Amino acid sequence: MIHGVDIQSRKKMCNEQGCVYEIMQADDVFFEQFGNVYISSIIPGVVKGWNIHTRTDTNIVCIAGNVKFVLYDRRKDSSTEGAVQEITIGRDNYNLVHIPYGVAFSWKNLGSDEALVANCATRVYDAEESLKIDVKSKEIPYQWQ
Amino acid sequence: MIHGVDIQSRKKMCNEQGCVYEIMQADDVFFEQFGNVYISSIIPGVVKGWNIHTRTDTNIVCIAGNVKFVLYDRRKDSSTEGAVQEITIGRDNYNLVHIPYGVAFSWKNLGSDEALVANCATRVYDAEESLKIDVKSKEIPYQWQ
Repeated sequence: MIHGVDIQSRKKMCNEQGCVYEIMQADDVFFEQFGNVYISSIIPGVVKGWNIHTRTDTNIVCIAGNVKFVLYDRRKDSSTEGAVQEITIGRDNYNLVHIPYGVAFSWKNLGSDEALVANCATRVYDAEESLKIDVKSKEIPYQWQ
Repeated sequence: MIHGVDIQSRKKMCNEQGCVYEIMQADDVFFEQFGNVYISSIIPGVVKGWNIHTRTDTNIVCIAGNVKFVLYDRRKDSSTEGAVQEITIGRDNYNLVHIPYGVAFSWKNLGSDEALVANCATRVYDAEESLKIDVKSKEIPYQWQ
């Protein structure tokens, strides 16, 4: 487990009309601050990333389909520097994943339909702190199939 | 238009990998405060509601499918008391709808697949301020087909 990464069970409440999927509340024990909430859709088989934030923490759930996240700790001062962590989330495994800034992440849609990921980030969008590394780069010791 | 209801265009950015759907940022001009963000799924043809909040404002987008919201102003002190407003939102019409507390709302999935609605509410969930009126009640002068 990468230092500072957290996986939290989230509630999903269903009845005959549909479901409610909790994401984040202001009184959650791990809530820091609200910056930005948005949804990313991802086409089957596609890999998005690597994303790196230099100041913003990421809090993600997968609310349609199933996705695999790979995290890579590139923080020089981390006790787990260089570690790689794989996490699969989705409706059947409805968890929130907290990714501290400095940890690179990429994710793949494992299903045959579009998947949807929600991110409740701790800061407003800022292009200057939102970095990208090509998903095929050798800079990160993980190669997607 | 019911007093205090607002419809805001939100950005949707797509490429060959998928889309990003903005919901809310802390620096949005109409952002008040962060309480709770969650997703509701709704099965085709189903009507959910009526929901009424006595202290919490609702900020909704539809990020999968298309839904029709009906709003009813039951606030005694409102300049539009008794007004009914219909709003259709979805991926093709990607707007955020702000519903002030006191305004009742219900919504129907217009499509043939599950629809998903995200709500970024101004307060944490509180059963005491989350009221329900049966969707078939004559108390509200709108009957869903």
